[in-house]
Amino acid sequence: MAGIKLPPKFFLNSHHYVIQSLLRTQTQDYFKFLQDRICKNLETVDGTSRFSEDSWSHQNGGGGRSRVLQNGGVFEKAGVNYSAVDSILSGRMAERMNVQPQSIFATGISLVLHPFSPMIPTVHMNLRYLELANGDAWFGGGMDLTPYYLFDDDAKHFHRTVKTVCDKYDPDRYLRFKQWCDEYFTVKHRNETRGIGGIFFDYQRDDLKRFFSFLQDAGDNFLDTYLPIVKRRKTEPWGEREKQWQLVRRGRYVEFNLLYDRGTLFGLETGGRTESILMSLPPAANWIYDHRVEPASREERLINILQHPQSWI
Amino acid sequence: MAGIKLPPKFFLNSHHYVIQSLLRTQTQDYFKFLQDRICKNLETVDGTSRFSEDSWSHQNGGGGRSRVLQNGGVFEKAGVNYSAVDSILSGRMAERMNVQPQSIFATGISLVLHPFSPMIPTVHMNLRYLELANGDAWFGGGMDLTPYYLFDDDAKHFHRTVKTVCDKYDPDRYLRFKQWCDEYFTVKHRNETRGIGGIFFDYQRDDLKRFFSFLQDAGDNFLDTYLPIVKRRKTEPWGEREKQWQLVRRGRYVEFNLLYDRGTLFGLETGGRTESILMSLPPAANWIYDHRVEPASREERLINILQHPQSWI
Repeated sequence: MAGIKLPPKFFLNSHHYVIQSLLRTQTQDYFKFLQDRICKNLETVDGTSRFSEDSWSHQNGGGGRSRVLQNGGVFEKAGVNYSAVDSILSGRMAERMNVQPQSIFATGISLVLHPFSPMIPTVHMNLRYLELANGDAWFGGGMDLTPYYLFDDDAKHFHRTVKTVCDKYDPDRYLRFKQWCDEYFTVKHRNETRGIGGIFFDYQRDDLKRFFSFLQDAGDNFLDTYLPIVKRRKTEPWGEREKQWQLVRRGRYVEFNLLYDRGTLFGLETGGRTESILMSLPPAANWIYDHRVEPASREERLINILQHPQSWI
Repeated sequence: MAGIKLPPKFFLNSHHYVIQSLLRTQTQDYFKFLQDRICKNLETVDGTSRFSEDSWSHQNGGGGRSRVLQNGGVFEKAGVNYSAVDSILSGRMAERMNVQPQSIFATGISLVLHPFSPMIPTVHMNLRYLELANGDAWFGGGMDLTPYYLFDDDAKHFHRTVKTVCDKYDPDRYLRFKQWCDEYFTVKHRNETRGIGGIFFDYQRDDLKRFFSFLQDAGDNFLDTYLPIVKRRKTEPWGEREKQWQLVRRGRYVEFNLLYDRGTLFGLETGGRTESILMSLPPAANWIYDHRVEPASREERLINILQHPQSWI
C-alpha cells in the first residue's frame, strides 16, 4: 500500500508519529483477521451459501476486500468489507469536518447482514481508524440492530453483550455511545430510529492505544452479540404479511443510508468503490404509499418503540 | 391559503409585484387543472385502478393534493402531486441557493409513473413556480423518460414532442434544456444518467409571463409525449428476467432521488410531507451486489446509452 505524504511538521512529534504508524499497521491486520473470522462463522451459520470475494484498489492508493454472500439459507444478502484507502478530502468533505483539504488514510471493517426471514433482525457493524495528513487520528464505529419483528429478549441480549465490553473500559461508555447511536440512526423525515440501536462513536482521539484495545474487544465480541439471536429466531414462522412488512421497513433502511449515513456519503464523495459502499443496501425493498399498520399489532409496537428509544438494560 | 409576509421594499417595484401575485394564483389554478386532466386520462389508460387523494396542509401555510394509483392494470404505482406551500428557507438551504434565510412560496405539479411492465418506461414530470420574500421569482421543472428496455422509436417520440413545444418559444431552448437534463439526471457514482433524458430547467426568471405560457404548453403536451409509448408497449411480452432487470434499474432510480434530487432534498429539509415527497420512489426495487449484464444484450445496450447521452432528433 502506498503511504500518504506527511507534512514536515508531522515528524516533530515523534512519539505521536510512532504510535500512529504502528496503529496503521495494527488496525489493518486486525480488521483483516476479523473479516476472516466473521465470514467463516457466518458461512457455518448460513449452511448453504459461501462468501465470494472481490479485491479492489483505490485510485489514490490502497484498496480492499469486499465479501458478499447472497441467497443463502439464512442470509438473503450479507456483506463484510475490509478496506484501507489513501484518499483526498475534497473541499466539501473537508469543510464538513472543519479541516483544510488534505490527504486522509482510512481503514475499517464494515458489515451489514440482511437475513431472509423477517423474524431475524438486520445487523450492522463498522469499526474504523482514520488519519489526516495534519497528524490528527481517531477511531469511529459502532454496531446496531434493526428488527422487523421485535423480540424484547433479542434487544436485551444485544445491548447487554455490547454493554459488557464497554463497561471494561469506562462505566459511562455504554450509555454515552448508546445515546449517540439513537441520535445518529434517526430517520429524521420519518421521526423514528432506523432500528433499536446499540452503540455508535466517532472522533475518538484520546489515548488511541487504549481505544484500539476496546475496538478489538468489541469486534471480537460481535458474533456473540448477534449469532444467538439468529439461532433462536431462524425457526420462527412467518408468511406473506411478515415478508411485506420487512420489505417496507427495508425501504426505510435505504432512506437512512442514502440520505443520512456519513460513511455512505463519505465513500461516494471520495470516489470509493460504489459496489462495496452500496453493499449495505437490502436485496429488495418496497415503497407503498402511506403504508399503515393495524392498531395494536406487532408492527405498530415496533414503530412505537422506534419513535421512543428504550433502555434495554 | 395564508400568504407569506413580504418585506416593505418589495412593494416599491409595483409592476413586478402585480405580475407575481397574478402568477401565484394563475400557476396554482393551472397546476390543479393539469392534475385533474392527467389523472383522468391515466385512469382511462390504466383500465382497472383509480387514483385516491390525500389533501394535506403544511405547518407554515398552504398544502396540497397527493393522488396515487397503486396496483393498476398498467401502473404499479403512479403518483401525481399538486402543492402550494409557504415555507422557510433554512440556513443550509438558503446557503445552497446563495440567498439570506427567508420565507419562500412554492407551487407545482410533480408526477412519477411506474408501470408494472418493464417494457413501458417510467416517466417523471415536474413544473414549479417559486417566489422568495425578497421579490425574486422563477420557474423550474422538466420531464424525462426512464426506460428499462429501450425502444429507439419511444425515445425519439418523447424527445420530438418535447422539442416541438420548446421550438415555439426559442430555437435553442430544446437543446439547452436537453443538455441540462442529461447533466442534472446523472447518477454520479454509477457514471450513467438516470434515463434517456428529456428537458430540465431551473431559475427561469426572465419574462415570467412568457415562460408561464411555455410551461402550460409543456404541461398540456405531457400526455401526448407519454401515452403513445404506453399504448404501443403494453402488449410487449416480458418475463422474469425482464422484471428482475427493471427492479435493479429501479434501485438506481432510488439512488438518484435520495442522493441527488434537489426537489426531494428540498422537500425533506423544509419539513414537507414525507409520503408526498417519497411518492416518487418505485413500488419495489432490488440491489444485487455487482450485478452484470450479458455482453451484446438489450440490457448492455441500455447501459451504454445511459453512459453516452444521445441526440434523439
